[in-house]
Amino acid sequence: MSTTDGSATASVEDAGGTGSGRDAIVRAARRAFTLKPYAEVTMRGIATAAGVSPSLIVKRFGTKEALFNTVADFGAAADALFAAPLPELGRHLVLTMVELRDRFGGDPLLRVVFSLGIEDERTLLRARFREQVTDRLAGRLTGPDAALRAELIAGQLLGLGATLSLHRPDGAGAHASAERLADLYAPGLQRLVDTA
Amino acid sequence: MSTTDGSATASVEDAGGTGSGRDAIVRAARRAFTLKPYAEVTMRGIATAAGVSPSLIVKRFGTKEALFNTVADFGAAADALFAAPLPELGRHLVLTMVELRDRFGGDPLLRVVFSLGIEDERTLLRARFREQVTDRLAGRLTGPDAALRAELIAGQLLGLGATLSLHRPDGAGAHASAERLADLYAPGLQRLVDTA
Repeated sequence: MSTTDGSATASVEDAGGTGSGRDAIVRAARRAFTLKPYAEVTMRGIATAAGVSPSLIVKRFGTKEALFNTVADFGAAADALFAAPLPELGRHLVLTMVELRDRFGGDPLLRVVFSLGIEDERTLLRARFREQVTDRLAGRLTGPDAALRAELIAGQLLGLGATLSLHRPDGAGAHASAERLADLYAPGLQRLVDTA
Repeated sequence: MSTTDGSATASVEDAGGTGSGRDAIVRAARRAFTLKPYAEVTMRGIATAAGVSPSLIVKRFGTKEALFNTVADFGAAADALFAAPLPELGRHLVLTMVELRDRFGGDPLLRVVFSLGIEDERTLLRARFREQVTDRLAGRLTGPDAALRAELIAGQLLGLGATLSLHRPDGAGAHASAERLADLYAPGLQRLVDTA
C-alpha cells in the first residue's frame, strides 16, 4: 500500500518504517489480531504469514504489544461505516458492519472491547477508538449532546458485533439477512443520529 | 447466601460444595473476575480477599479456569434487568444496567464479550449467557423473530456497557444521568421489544 493513497491507515502503516516486508507484516498482523485471541497470536506465526523472519518484525516493530498497537487502527472501518448522509446513516451502519464482518472474517471494531478485559495498559487502543470512531462521529452529528449520542451509537455498533459473535454459529443473527438485521436494528441507531 | 432463597445464583454458589468459606470464595472470585482482567486475577488474591487459604480454593473449585466458570453466572443480573412488564422494558433495562454497574463497580454482562477475545475454550460462559439472558428474554417476547430480537436487545445492552466503559472516565456517558441515558438509549431497545 502506498503512503500517498490518502487512506486512513497510511500513517499507521508507516509506523514500522519503510522498505520491503513492512506492508506484508502489517497485513499479516492485522489479520492475526482480528481473527485470533491476543494470547494465541505469535510473532512467529505473523512472520510465516508475511514471508519474513521473526527477527525482522522485532527489529521493525518491537514487541508483540507494540505491533498490536501499531496495527490497531479503526480509520478504514470508520471510513466505510460513516460513508452515508445523516438521514440514512442508521441503516448504512448496520449493512456496512455486516459486510465488513463478512469480508474480513471478523469484527472491525470489537477488539477495542476485548482490550477492556485483557490488559489495562492497552489504553492506546481505546484512545484510537475514541479519536477515530466516537469523536469523528460526534463531529458530524448536529444538535445537543452530540458527544453522548456518538458514544451511544458506537455502543450499539459494538453491541451488534458482540451479539452476532456471541451467538454464532447457530444463533438467529447468523441466519438473518443483512436487510432483516437492518430493519430491526437501524431504527434505534437512526434515532440517536436524529435525536436532539 | 441460602440455597433456598430462590435466587438465580443459588445453584451456582452451591457448585463448590457446602461449608464455611464457600460463599466468601464465590463472592471474592466474582468480584475479582468482574473488576480485573482475567490474567491479573490470582487464586492467592481471591484467597486473601475471602480469608481462606489458596489450597482450600483449589480443593473446592479446582483451577482458576474452573473457578471462573463456576462464578460466571448471569442469572442474578438477568433477574434485575428483566423485572419489568414488556411495555416498560426498554427504559427499565437502561436504568437497571446503570444501577448494576454503579452498585458492583463493574458491568454485569460485559465479561461474556471479553471471553471472545481471550480464550476460545471459554465457551461455557457464552452458553450460560445464551441460556440465562438471550433465551430467557426470547421466551418473554411476543411476535415473530423473538430469538433474533432477543439477540439484538442483548447486543444493545452489551454495547451500552461497552461504550460506558470504553469512554470513561472523561466521556460524555460518564457525566450523563441515568435518566438522560434512558431518554436516548431506551427507545431503540423498546422498539426491539415491541417490533413484530
